[in-house]
Amino acid sequence: MSLAEWQKIEVRADRSYPVFLGAPLQELGEYLHSQMDDVEHILIITHHSVADLYFDRLMEGLQDYRVNLFKIPAGEEGKSLERLSQLTTSALRYGADRKTLVIALGGGVIGDLAGFFASVFMRGIRLIQVPTTLLAQVDSSIGGKVAVNHPAGKNILGSFYPPQAVWTDFTTLESLPWGEVENGLAESIKHAIIADSDLFEFFEKQEQSIKQRDPSVWREMVARSSAVKVRIVSQDEREQGVRALLNLGHSFGHALETEMNYRGVTHGQGVSIGLLAAAYLANAKGFITLDEVDRVKHLLITFGLPTVIKGQDSQALLQGMKTDKKNQGGRKILILPKGIGQAVVSKECTDPEILAAWDQVISSDDEVES
Amino acid sequence: MSLAEWQKIEVRADRSYPVFLGAPLQELGEYLHSQMDDVEHILIITHHSVADLYFDRLMEGLQDYRVNLFKIPAGEEGKSLERLSQLTTSALRYGADRKTLVIALGGGVIGDLAGFFASVFMRGIRLIQVPTTLLAQVDSSIGGKVAVNHPAGKNILGSFYPPQAVWTDFTTLESLPWGEVENGLAESIKHAIIADSDLFEFFEKQEQSIKQRDPSVWREMVARSSAVKVRIVSQDEREQGVRALLNLGHSFGHALETEMNYRGVTHGQGVSIGLLAAAYLANAKGFITLDEVDRVKHLLITFGLPTVIKGQDSQALLQGMKTDKKNQGGRKILILPKGIGQAVVSKECTDPEILAAWDQVISSDDEVES
Ligand SMILES: NC(=O)c1ccc[n+]([C@@H]2O[C@H](COP(=O)([O-])OP(=O)(O)OC[C@H]3O[C@@H](n4cnc5c(N)ncnc54)[C@H](O)[C@@H]3O)[C@@H](O)[C@H]2O)c1
Ligand SMILES: NC(=O)c1ccc[n+]([C@@H]2O[C@H](COP(=O)([O-])OP(=O)(O)OC[C@H]3O[C@@H](n4cnc5c(N)ncnc54)[C@H](O)[C@@H]3O)[C@@H](O)[C@H]2O)c1
Repeated sequence: MSLAEWQKIEVRADRSYPVFLGAPLQELGEYLHSQMDDVEHILIITHHSVADLYFDRLMEGLQDYRVNLFKIPAGEEGKSLERLSQLTTSALRYGADRKTLVIALGGGVIGDLAGFFASVFMRGIRLIQVPTTLLAQVDSSIGGKVAVNHPAGKNILGSFYPPQAVWTDFTTLESLPWGEVENGLAESIKHAIIADSDLFEFFEKQEQSIKQRDPSVWREMVARSSAVKVRIVSQDEREQGVRALLNLGHSFGHALETEMNYRGVTHGQGVSIGLLAAAYLANAKGFITLDEVDRVKHLLITFGLPTVIKGQDSQALLQGMKTDKKNQGGRKILILPKGIGQAVVSKECTDPEILAAWDQVISSDDEVES
Repeated sequence: MSLAEWQKIEVRADRSYPVFLGAPLQELGEYLHSQMDDVEHILIITHHSVADLYFDRLMEGLQDYRVNLFKIPAGEEGKSLERLSQLTTSALRYGADRKTLVIALGGGVIGDLAGFFASVFMRGIRLIQVPTTLLAQVDSSIGGKVAVNHPAGKNILGSFYPPQAVWTDFTTLESLPWGEVENGLAESIKHAIIADSDLFEFFEKQEQSIKQRDPSVWREMVARSSAVKVRIVSQDEREQGVRALLNLGHSFGHALETEMNYRGVTHGQGVSIGLLAAAYLANAKGFITLDEVDRVKHLLITFGLPTVIKGQDSQALLQGMKTDKKNQGGRKILILPKGIGQAVVSKECTDPEILAAWDQVISSDDEVES
């Protein structure tokens, strides 16, 4: 298969880069040979489990390079300064230099860690993102945000570091557990709500095929959803304007995740609740009809994403939103859908309005769990 | 004194920024008020000793801001991931957000640490460099290079992060011990050799006044020497061309510092030996006359900088140059002076030639120390 046959979309930014959609892992080497003639050493950073699944396939094309593999255990803890430090020690031991190329093979955790490492090692070396989760393919591998966590805050240390290319092999998604699929679906649906009503209808029409993982429908879903992200970050790489819309549902979602101490709620579930809360709030503000709110709700339910939470206190959740990084001078900055396919930044939401939105996603059903 | 009266030179780069020469510490606040109307919170990062000397003066202009001070002990160990981590914890505890301004008040260690912190905290917040050592004023505060060390390598994690401005108050140099002055003089002389023969003559003519710290001569020395750095980084911010010339003497110097385990030799002393070794090598290559080599040597001696080292093995030093970050494919990349006032990148030096240069700065005088 030749390069031309895959879909290629371009992120237009300070430094533009291509996103290859449907590009086979085993052909990345051919691409590198054709594009970067001074690469000799490659450092692949990945999870143990992802290496087991895909390292050999990726290596098929990399036989001419000196390749080192750095594997870490799965989990959000991988995105830490300690891991960055270990990575630095290993990289130097492997003889990494300014011409070394980093390949991030994995989900968002790997993309963020490996990307941050590449952004600071010797003040920046080259990076290829090879996303293998749905979330990474439609969202985190595109746009150049990289970061590690710190006990004092999530993603608190990072940078904007565009890769040389994003290499998206759809077939890696076949091994992804449904729980992880949900995380990506929540972001994809978010993309549809903020910027692509056709994509939203596609989700509605293809519910069943998506759930059954029909390959051609998945390809289209990933391609269209990535395209939304590409379009938005091309307009605003550094999040000074329209990129902020990608936070739809996230101020609510983060507050929930934090309140629950990141236990018993996945990121996708938090975003799902958040998308719906934002929709209710937008309805109160007259930005979206109840009918449209229901369409959002229905779609989330279809894919097994939650639309209500139990046993939460809306006051505490509102309180949790106070520390959001996006707030300005004590004012809450929220993203609200405007119909389906558009969104706006709002500084005008009052605390009682936000509380009311929370209350609509909190179930009063106080079942006693024993 | 109005802003217009100080000398202002502009670093022209991806994002240009001004270098204010002779700008009083106590007037930085006035500048901030006039330039950045959304700053509310300032985080000053400095050494304990520098805070004792200059914090109050700086604060005179910062009364309208919420200011937090982060003080660290002096020493190269301050430039570490651990310190970055502590800084992150403190910054968040102080309520730092994306609008927080970082002020790096100190020498190159503070500039590099605070600069790296600013470059990654919440993916980058604003930074003002306020250099208080000669080395920082003429060199490290200009050009945007920031970094921390790692047990596996010096300055190994960093980025290119231009400040909003460099605020250089010459009077802070009055308290600088002569040992530290030497470090800066070595870099200033290097600037003269690679790019400014007039500056070199200035050093020769003003030897005495410089040693006596005549304020007006120092002002001129710092201003002219900073101007060289500004000119070079404006041509090549990311060190892909002419900026490499600033490494004159450093490949030799680093090898020496490493061989001596950073004990018994300061950075300035290493550079001094390195400048001379590079001059001898350039002479062997026919780039510079012996007369010019002698002028370099004489100037270094005048300022108390060393031109010979004892008890070193040139083979070991040559070996140490093998790991230089700048080498390409096993080939040593060296900077050589071309006369005085110009320099070139050379990939053509053979190991015997480099050995011969080392031998000219190694004293055979094996005094037995008891
Ligand atoms: N940089 C950005 O713009 C951005 C955007 C959104 C999220 N993020 C970050 O992304 C992270 C979450 O990413 P994620 O959801 O991909 O989680 P993840 O990276 O933790 O991956 C989820 C799990 O799936 C496994 N996995 C990966 N690929 C697989 C495959 N093909 N088959 C089977 N298992 C596979 C992983 O090993 C892991 O256990 C968070 O840290 C978040 O902060 C970053
Ligand atoms: N970023 C760059 O482009 C660049 C260039 C060259 C060097 N550097 C880095 O700079 C560092 C060396 O910088 P340095 O030579 O300024 O050393 P430094 O920062 O360690 O300062 C030297 C000493 O002087 C003290 N001091 C600072 N200002 C003083 C003042 N006004 N009066 C009295 N004492 C004062 C400091 O507290 C310290 O003890 C190294 O880490 C080196 O890697 C960076």
